[in-house]
Amino acid sequence: MPRDKVLVAQGGGPTAVINQSLVGVVLEARKGKNAGCVYGAFHGVRGIVDEDFTNLSRESETNLEKVAATPSSALGSTRDKPDEKYCREILASLQAHGIDRFFYIGGNDSSDTLRILSQQARKARYPLRCVHVPKTIDNDLVLNDHTPGYPSAARFVAGAFTGVSLDIRAIPGVYVGVVMGRHAGFLTAAAALARHHTEDGPHLIYLPERSFNQRAFLRDVKQVYGRLGHCVIAVSEGIHDGRGVPIATKLVGKVERDAHGNIQLSGTGALGDMLAKTIRDNLGIARVRADTLGYLQRSFLGCVSDVDQREARRAGVKAVRFAAQGQNGSVTIRRRAGKTYRAEYKLVGLAAVGGKTRTMPNAYIATSGTDVTQAFRDYLRPLLGSSLPTHANLGNRRVKKILD
Amino acid sequence: MPRDKVLVAQGGGPTAVINQSLVGVVLEARKGKNAGCVYGAFHGVRGIVDEDFTNLSRESETNLEKVAATPSSALGSTRDKPDEKYCREILASLQAHGIDRFFYIGGNDSSDTLRILSQQARKARYPLRCVHVPKTIDNDLVLNDHTPGYPSAARFVAGAFTGVSLDIRAIPGVYVGVVMGRHAGFLTAAAALARHHTEDGPHLIYLPERSFNQRAFLRDVKQVYGRLGHCVIAVSEGIHDGRGVPIATKLVGKVERDAHGNIQLSGTGALGDMLAKTIRDNLGIARVRADTLGYLQRSFLGCVSDVDQREARRAGVKAVRFAAQGQNGSVTIRRRAGKTYRAEYKLVGLAAVGGKTRTMPNAYIATSGTDVTQAFRDYLRPLLGSSLPTHANLGNRRVKKILD
Repeated sequence: MPRDKVLVAQGGGPTAVINQSLVGVVLEARKGKNAGCVYGAFHGVRGIVDEDFTNLSRESETNLEKVAATPSSALGSTRDKPDEKYCREILASLQAHGIDRFFYIGGNDSSDTLRILSQQARKARYPLRCVHVPKTIDNDLVLNDHTPGYPSAARFVAGAFTGVSLDIRAIPGVYVGVVMGRHAGFLTAAAALARHHTEDGPHLIYLPERSFNQRAFLRDVKQVYGRLGHCVIAVSEGIHDGRGVPIATKLVGKVERDAHGNIQLSGTGALGDMLAKTIRDNLGIARVRADTLGYLQRSFLGCVSDVDQREARRAGVKAVRFAAQGQNGSVTIRRRAGKTYRAEYKLVGLAAVGGKTRTMPNAYIATSGTDVTQAFRDYLRPLLGSSLPTHANLGNRRVKKILD
Repeated sequence: MPRDKVLVAQGGGPTAVINQSLVGVVLEARKGKNAGCVYGAFHGVRGIVDEDFTNLSRESETNLEKVAATPSSALGSTRDKPDEKYCREILASLQAHGIDRFFYIGGNDSSDTLRILSQQARKARYPLRCVHVPKTIDNDLVLNDHTPGYPSAARFVAGAFTGVSLDIRAIPGVYVGVVMGRHAGFLTAAAALARHHTEDGPHLIYLPERSFNQRAFLRDVKQVYGRLGHCVIAVSEGIHDGRGVPIATKLVGKVERDAHGNIQLSGTGALGDMLAKTIRDNLGIARVRADTLGYLQRSFLGCVSDVDQREARRAGVKAVRFAAQGQNGSVTIRRRAGKTYRAEYKLVGLAAVGGKTRTMPNAYIATSGTDVTQAFRDYLRPLLGSSLPTHANLGNRRVKKILD
């Protein structure tokens, strides 16, 4: 009986735990009685077409464990979104190398690639098992309670907004923090977990699930600033007006578009700067600061959720086991009913996940449209993991004035 | 004998450990036989003039320890830089409340305030002890080996550049990360500690200690990009041309100036965005991304150097002891000679530190002007503290191509 020949690759934006899934696949695939070679493709599907493979069979377990704890995609990644022709080239490469199991760790585009590829393999009567391992800091895969990568990015966002909220309280002003997430507000919403006392920031949260209205925005900022003397705002990079036009496009004259026609939202401070200018110009507040959290959200070394690490690893392991049972599909993470948080892993069809986008359910968004609900906080809290750093305030024991 | 009446306040930009110094002062001041009330002023010197005091004598040790571990300035801060008149108002408030020991945790402006104040107290024959406790993420206080706050911020910057370097290697392009530091490049230089292997980023580091030349910059970026296919750049917000004009001013049409006439460098992504545009326009590289690390550098919850925590605490404790010996001055941190890192604390005159700025010594800057030396790495490494997260790469066991 010929041995299994396994290929693993990573697609889309890196995360803090995508290498956990990689190592989960590699170690599990090396276990079985029938285990053959385990290849890794550099830079996702691009590396398959280019036959740019590395042999992971001889990678030591010690080094693999170190790689697992390393952020970003150790094999490199790609933004390529293969069409039928591209997938035929992938298949030709897989066939040439006798690869019969392909695990692709990525978002909904990666899942869709596997859908096309598995159809082509079936037509060509080539015995290929394709299993998609979910990852995305955007948390926007359907049929998943959440996706690996999101909890760690959410932990970073919560830590960032806890810090800047304390900072802006110390030297009062208005602060705008722009968070990743083109269509789904889950990551921006994580800023709410920075709030422990009623007056803590962020005080306003703008999600792409709601239309952004500049007048309402200025009214909200004015109200908070008037009440507290400072205001911390979390804004999704994907906020858009009532007709769906991204605010980033409206504010910025010349925007960069990627291969899919998406405008560049990350890697620029333009949206934050323009919102800061809008506040400064319209409300006459002198100290207005904007930060764009940028690439640190997904790659910062030293901020990771242990729950996320375990689940990302588990998703990789499960993918190999599902393939061993002869199944194609996408691994999904569900939450078991019950008081204690517990995840379970189910395989669904590739077409069910591929190319679809999940956004924040209404139950997670406050009626004000500028905050999240307790239901969202309860949803996110267990995902952030253990050993969360805490913070505290001094008591207020005001001394009676003498001179005044 | 009347009891000591102590006041503590925090000035300038917050840090991750400035509350350690605060708690060091409070706990030590509450210890002595002669200990009286310990007051805290809200928002630095502004709170003294406004008699905005809180009584810290009854703050529980448990809560103080939690506050110590909290980033940013728990008492609030101020950017006010008092002149003679302002200092007379401070003195009047201190006299009215019978305060005879004042500890001001801050940078060189705070030290200068104490210099003026202690002169006025002497003239007025008011028995006031003033001790300055150093802090600044810029690391720019003279006579100090380093200053509390810098090691934790440096740890953040190193973690950020480790992550983005792995990220930009995974999806190749050019990345510009803008780091705080108007005149001193210590914090930007910390990005070099992200580099473990020769090809790791950051590949280029631009410091305010060297003149920034756009042609040389573009040549350097082109060279690295040509060699590696990607390029990670750490840039100080304070970079300037040969005549000392900040690049931020040259690139941005309208800039904001603070009360001291300094242009706003932080809280805007403008410098990074303009450098990215310069690279894109001149080198024809499509994927160029810029992040401005912003306020996260000094306040992020969950990234702190334990060495920094201990030293910041110690600096507060030492300040109280120096005052008890009847001394005015500024606490400085020195490094003991010897192989093992060890700090010691010495008091120097207020005039020796106040208003002066220390920049990176030449021995820490590579002759290329775009990197640091091993001497700098050796200097910084012990300050970053213990339990530094590590990262690892996969081995390169290229598989022979078949189709190609």
